[in-house]
Amino acid sequence: MTDPTRVRRHPERGRYERAEIEAILDAALVSHVGFEDERPFVIPMIHARVGGTLYLHGSPGSRLLRRLERGADVCVTATLVDGLVLARSQFHHSLNYRSAVVLGRARLVSDDGEKRQALRAIVDHVLPGRAEDSRPPSEKELLATMVLALPIDEASAKVRTGMPVDEEEDEGLPFWAGVVPLKTTPGPPEPVDPELPVPDYVRRLVD
Amino acid sequence: MTDPTRVRRHPERGRYERAEIEAILDAALVSHVGFEDERPFVIPMIHARVGGTLYLHGSPGSRLLRRLERGADVCVTATLVDGLVLARSQFHHSLNYRSAVVLGRARLVSDDGEKRQALRAIVDHVLPGRAEDSRPPSEKELLATMVLALPIDEASAKVRTGMPVDEEEDEGLPFWAGVVPLKTTPGPPEPVDPELPVPDYVRRLVD
Repeated sequence: MTDPTRVRRHPERGRYERAEIEAILDAALVSHVGFEDERPFVIPMIHARVGGTLYLHGSPGSRLLRRLERGADVCVTATLVDGLVLARSQFHHSLNYRSAVVLGRARLVSDDGEKRQALRAIVDHVLPGRAEDSRPPSEKELLATMVLALPIDEASAKVRTGMPVDEEEDEGLPFWAGVVPLKTTPGPPEPVDPELPVPDYVRRLVD
Repeated sequence: MTDPTRVRRHPERGRYERAEIEAILDAALVSHVGFEDERPFVIPMIHARVGGTLYLHGSPGSRLLRRLERGADVCVTATLVDGLVLARSQFHHSLNYRSAVVLGRARLVSDDGEKRQALRAIVDHVLPGRAEDSRPPSEKELLATMVLALPIDEASAKVRTGMPVDEEEDEGLPFWAGVVPLKTTPGPPEPVDPELPVPDYVRRLVD
């Protein structure tokens, strides 16, 4: 934990253990990447983690990546919403969630091997097992992709779990209170070619 | 559309119609709010829209809200991930998504009526029908809540739908290609008091 990553609001929700931060980054399909380019911008991106490094990728023409390549500060935030928290009072309504924040400066990945490994990790982050069952990038595609690496050093997480917490004097109010859990559910795969069998790693998602 | 909100990468995915932007903001449970405080920060927040205004709320002590109250630029990005897009080539892997971005400067809401309306909207944004069935904020709670208003003027959206688009020469490759649709699914409500009947507006979510 560093001062900018210390959780100030609801400090009891702060989490600083590396394993917990990594688990949130791994579970979140996308993250929101914040940077400044005269004004603040926030862009959704697919990330992937390899060990203690977070990888982002995109077109070499993108404003975000060009900015970060020049050494700008970045903030990558990944959030999972786990449930609606319905208290008797509107004031104590909340969400159950897990959120991880990584701050720092990104490094342009120019090594061919590291770049290929990062792109594989991004494909497998979206769907474990998929990198093995798809065509790796050609030299031309590799050149048309920019990969940035951010060390997961300045990072923290924030987690809320459990039931709503109402004021004692509200507990007798005639309003239903509780949690509605939420999860992301895959639907039936929609194939380009219905003749090809659905691979196991896709079927596992849905079953 | 203004220059900072113009979609540059994949311009065919850009959407500038107000109704489409508003629909994405309404459908997204949380947004990611970016601001600068010596360095960029991105924080997940619950938002709500009333007409052409986006409301955010939080503790008057929060770094973000104190910063925005002083007139800092903000970027609010709301993203819905609708599916995994699996192409034969790793290069053309993607996600189906809807994302809305609102840029601007927030205004502190000091009018009592507007503040109460915004907080109701935030509760009903999380769960339509809930504001009616919960205790509104007391004067003390109102003072302990900061509400900011951001006009939805500088805004755009970005949308990807449909099947993967592979290079023609990859279409014969022996890899399954297609889309795995994703949606957020509520699970069975977990009550604080199992004696109270689950309200209709909660049951409607789950059924």
